[in-house]
Amino acid sequence: MKIGVIGGGQLGRMLALAGTPLGMNFAFLDPAPDACAQALGEHIRADYGDQDHLRQLADEVDLVTFEFESVPAETVAFLSQFVPVYPSAEALRIARDRWFEKSLFKELGIPTPAFADVQSQADLDAAAAAIGLPAVLKTRTLGYDGKGQKVLREVADVAGAFAELGSVPCILEGFVPFTGEVSLVAVRARDGETRFYPLVHNTHVGGILELSVASSAHPLQALAEDYVGRVLDKLDYVGVLAFEFFEVDGGLKANEIAPRVHNSGHWTIEGAECSQFENHLRAVAGLPLGSTAKVGESAMLNFIGSVPPVEQVVAVADCHLHHYGKAFKAGRKVGHATLRCADRATLDARIRAVEALIKA
Amino acid sequence: MKIGVIGGGQLGRMLALAGTPLGMNFAFLDPAPDACAQALGEHIRADYGDQDHLRQLADEVDLVTFEFESVPAETVAFLSQFVPVYPSAEALRIARDRWFEKSLFKELGIPTPAFADVQSQADLDAAAAAIGLPAVLKTRTLGYDGKGQKVLREVADVAGAFAELGSVPCILEGFVPFTGEVSLVAVRARDGETRFYPLVHNTHVGGILELSVASSAHPLQALAEDYVGRVLDKLDYVGVLAFEFFEVDGGLKANEIAPRVHNSGHWTIEGAECSQFENHLRAVAGLPLGSTAKVGESAMLNFIGSVPPVEQVVAVADCHLHHYGKAFKAGRKVGHATLRCADRATLDARIRAVEALIKA
Repeated sequence: MKIGVIGGGQLGRMLALAGTPLGMNFAFLDPAPDACAQALGEHIRADYGDQDHLRQLADEVDLVTFEFESVPAETVAFLSQFVPVYPSAEALRIARDRWFEKSLFKELGIPTPAFADVQSQADLDAAAAAIGLPAVLKTRTLGYDGKGQKVLREVADVAGAFAELGSVPCILEGFVPFTGEVSLVAVRARDGETRFYPLVHNTHVGGILELSVASSAHPLQALAEDYVGRVLDKLDYVGVLAFEFFEVDGGLKANEIAPRVHNSGHWTIEGAECSQFENHLRAVAGLPLGSTAKVGESAMLNFIGSVPPVEQVVAVADCHLHHYGKAFKAGRKVGHATLRCADRATLDARIRAVEALIKA
Repeated sequence: MKIGVIGGGQLGRMLALAGTPLGMNFAFLDPAPDACAQALGEHIRADYGDQDHLRQLADEVDLVTFEFESVPAETVAFLSQFVPVYPSAEALRIARDRWFEKSLFKELGIPTPAFADVQSQADLDAAAAAIGLPAVLKTRTLGYDGKGQKVLREVADVAGAFAELGSVPCILEGFVPFTGEVSLVAVRARDGETRFYPLVHNTHVGGILELSVASSAHPLQALAEDYVGRVLDKLDYVGVLAFEFFEVDGGLKANEIAPRVHNSGHWTIEGAECSQFENHLRAVAGLPLGSTAKVGESAMLNFIGSVPPVEQVVAVADCHLHHYGKAFKAGRKVGHATLRCADRATLDARIRAVEALIKA
């Protein structure tokens, strides 16, 4: 089976590493000449709107999936004429737009911070008055890793903020005094079977994920599964979806969803019986899902900007390096490490060991 | 770091799957147009004696390693002029020739079946008289998966047997009434540090490995490590080496060594903290070795001739498929499955489930 992937970055690379042992081949459509997934499959170098190359991809593969959600709707619609596409156009339409996303949460009774659509500075002024400050102004589309957003702490911050974000459609979200950030990675098969990985505690710095720690018997696991299940079923979703929540007052408020494999699920490569990458491929290929059970205690640390010397990373006991083969650049995710061990105290000590390498 | 691999079959493929996350790139020199490792790296399609292409490989990579031991000595000598080669020419010289191999075992005080060099039918007649029957006649080089050998059960089998194996240099080995076959996979770093995986029980059918089960606290583990350590140190070996033993009268008799990653070590991909493939690469690249500790109870079943339907293999709980992407052909290893679970009873039940798929 040949899988087409829109995007050829590290998520595509890790999909190919998981899928090759299943007997799958891969083609990646990505305009970047140095797309790092090309080491593991065919690289169709083209823009996401290039219909000739999209058609070539569709003709070569058995199905198409995505590495990121900001794919133009036209691209998805075009591909869908020729080849099965998972997740669906509708799931991508919702997930790539914060307004549609939050509106879906609201429709499904999933708590989420107060929010308002902002199409102009006048909209923003009204929304800020209604929701109150502090609040966060975010572009409806194309935001990631803290990009495309601005925290409005006081009234002076509101003036001109819409123009600062490019005068594009935005959403204003009430600021949530959260005690933690967690994510739930889930996978849903074509037949509707759904499995959930354990909740993950995430630590972001400057909007970029730095550390994910898989939980054991988290008291909010069942609640999170309930919320995520509502979204998956509503969208008749196929594949892996990650759902980020704020922990607030002992409950959860929905932040956002990502309709794809997710950075906070990278620990599953070693830390779960079947990784998010393999499970995504199983789901889209119509295969039975794999177990989402944990194997020991696990954490994932991102390498941002550069990877510490390889000999130092692998010298940490039971540390698994994932180097993306990308050029080092400030703020860019260029690798990660998974730690897996028997108990939490050992895990914490090793997290500190890897953090020390990152800071060195 | 770019790694050159002589051979581009499934072992090269699994080396690349393990090395890509370490930031390594791969080039495979293999004459086969359909060498299955080519999905994961550059394929230099050339004969193993083609000096122009060997030189190209040497110029492109940081070091060269091997996927199989039957590489011509001239190839190794030629490459060694230009690039580091691991394991060494001397290790390959010994391991690819059963006479040198057995002689080394004898020199190092490692018990091994009685053996004699056979360069002619007259040699064979004399050796059969001295060693007695039953005995096994094997070509000194190029044998694998039961090929290049013949069991001599009675006197009538001896006549003409030398010609039957092609009138090439052979070795006659006394038949050993073994109670089991075990192998020890070891890895030795450039600095001499050595680590051993747990002993593995192997079941061969028709000379081809069918099932490997990793042991827990095997009573012969220490003895096996002693024997293997002697060989590794004597050869100043760098990389993974597999050592096959017969279990005889509660002790071990050396059968053969393979100076490479080995089929009986495939379970380590999921079943050990750091796989034989990653540890081989760590060793040859001069990186610290990874842990050889088991993660749960594990077994590996080979898929010979064909891979059962993928949806059936992955439906077995906690079953990890490794499809080599090779054309199906009788007697050919085309994939394997690793089972990993918490206890031996569950493991045994799942082994039976996969065996049922193979026999279906």
